[in-house]
Amino acid sequence: MQNTQVILAKRPVGVPDPSHFEVRDTAVPDLAAGQFLIRVSHWSVDPAMRGWANDVPNYSPPVALGDPMRSFAVGEVIASRHPGYAEGDVVEGLLGWQTHVVSDGANIGRKVTETDLPRSYALGIMGLNGTTAYFGLLESCAAKAGDTVVVSTAAGAVGSAVGQIAKIIGCRTVGIAGGPVKTRQCLEDFGYDAAIDYKAQDVAEAIAAACPDGVDCYFDNTCGPISDAVMTKLAQGARITICGTAAITEWDPLPMGPRVHRQLLVARARMQGFLIFDHKDRLAEAYAALAGWLREGRIAVREHVLDGPEAALDAIGMLYRGENTGKLIVKVG
Amino acid sequence: MQNTQVILAKRPVGVPDPSHFEVRDTAVPDLAAGQFLIRVSHWSVDPAMRGWANDVPNYSPPVALGDPMRSFAVGEVIASRHPGYAEGDVVEGLLGWQTHVVSDGANIGRKVTETDLPRSYALGIMGLNGTTAYFGLLESCAAKAGDTVVVSTAAGAVGSAVGQIAKIIGCRTVGIAGGPVKTRQCLEDFGYDAAIDYKAQDVAEAIAAACPDGVDCYFDNTCGPISDAVMTKLAQGARITICGTAAITEWDPLPMGPRVHRQLLVARARMQGFLIFDHKDRLAEAYAALAGWLREGRIAVREHVLDGPEAALDAIGMLYRGENTGKLIVKVG
Repeated sequence: MQNTQVILAKRPVGVPDPSHFEVRDTAVPDLAAGQFLIRVSHWSVDPAMRGWANDVPNYSPPVALGDPMRSFAVGEVIASRHPGYAEGDVVEGLLGWQTHVVSDGANIGRKVTETDLPRSYALGIMGLNGTTAYFGLLESCAAKAGDTVVVSTAAGAVGSAVGQIAKIIGCRTVGIAGGPVKTRQCLEDFGYDAAIDYKAQDVAEAIAAACPDGVDCYFDNTCGPISDAVMTKLAQGARITICGTAAITEWDPLPMGPRVHRQLLVARARMQGFLIFDHKDRLAEAYAALAGWLREGRIAVREHVLDGPEAALDAIGMLYRGENTGKLIVKVG
Repeated sequence: MQNTQVILAKRPVGVPDPSHFEVRDTAVPDLAAGQFLIRVSHWSVDPAMRGWANDVPNYSPPVALGDPMRSFAVGEVIASRHPGYAEGDVVEGLLGWQTHVVSDGANIGRKVTETDLPRSYALGIMGLNGTTAYFGLLESCAAKAGDTVVVSTAAGAVGSAVGQIAKIIGCRTVGIAGGPVKTRQCLEDFGYDAAIDYKAQDVAEAIAAACPDGVDCYFDNTCGPISDAVMTKLAQGARITICGTAAITEWDPLPMGPRVHRQLLVARARMQGFLIFDHKDRLAEAYAALAGWLREGRIAVREHVLDGPEAALDAIGMLYRGENTGKLIVKVG
């Protein structure tokens, strides 16, 4: 049986492009006791993969050259010599960009039990993106009914979930996205009360117009000029969750920007870094809530599905160029 | 009876100097029903007074030209037609730079009941400075035993209280101050485990040496380059309380500095603006704790006392030039 992998062949500096990857076939080894074989169906494409491919300190060590690109993926167990996993189990985990994975369970995130939902959701709304939105908004941002919630990359996999959860709990939602397609998605697909096109509008003026009482919660996926504009419109007691910094490509040396201290002081606001892995003991709560809202049709999901391993080569680039129109997935099975 | 006032005669831009004030004598009016007369003994000199004198938006409107300079002060009730205040009561409040005040109670902060402690303490450790240190450290910074706590303007009225309260609850304390006199004060008077002279040392290197496990809590009174250095050494889950921004004199337009977002994200740290007025319903708790520690000799207080109204003219300048060696007070009675 063949395992088709996309390996990291060259070390990128910044966003990897197709020249940094190679498609390779290898044989699937026999299972030892305590192992099981997964036939992978979907690979995830996430902003964090840029950092994983680069040789810079991060939450985790960089991917070794020659290894399959690290990524979240979902698949089905097709053979097992492991007591905890049976044929037919659907599992999600850091399986990497490969079609077949022999696992001892260490790289498994969870068994996906919501088999009535599309399996690829386990990589987005029912995975890292949805749980990040859930805890980032409800815990870190401490959003509550009546709050005005501003979201950057508002049509993205995390942002669209943040906006919709905020709406479900009774917030007023304002999405910031780039271009007419994504801002229309914000309004029509994700139910934002207002959408701002940062490529066409003055963000500070647009925020002032959309948030007459100021910004209570800012779920920040970008940093940079968009965030600088939002920070000028904080309401008293505002909470800013820093979930991502997509607008800044280089952090060494530290880039300069407007100092936020006085804005935080005058508004008695708080700005907080958020990483979902700090909430790993409470994920079941998020999965249950998200699955419920999905089944009730209260959360819309947009996926952008690429077909086959070769399509992965430029996928991280697509993400950083903002060309995807939904959660970016590579379908491989 | 004469009331000697120091009035704001000219509008400063930035730090006021003696040319902006005038000493003036006026007659004390008779008491109406519901009023009482305070003979003021001590005026406070605080960093916030710079903002109060300038014509810029702030927490409160600027002092009107011709009015006594707004300040906290403490004194004794010497006549009363108010049912809530009796002759002999000691009161603290926003009484302004004047020797006699007719009050209806609206500008009174509290009755000072700890009459065994020096009365001037009501303007510092038993007033705004001590309560700011108490709630800023214990609530906003959420300091707990074992934490490494870094304090800027560590020998100042707020900073010295922060350092000592942190030590009392079992933290390791590192003070940052300017010059050998203040750093010695940090070690000898206020019990810091380490003191850093930002005028003579590389702050980032000194923090790294003094905080081998990183900074859990940073009580920031300065902003600017000192804070930029501390931010490079955050421990996981660090809490930064922004209490003051003394190192930055101009906020319009916003000054540039290193972006803090990635540091907050990687450390899952939080940065929060703090103002004591948000805790006004809980001040009694802080007064009780602080008075207890003072009586047990566990908190040392350093005051820098100027004599007489004329000494107030340059007092705010002294504070901003860093010339005071303790909580700056003007004794007028």
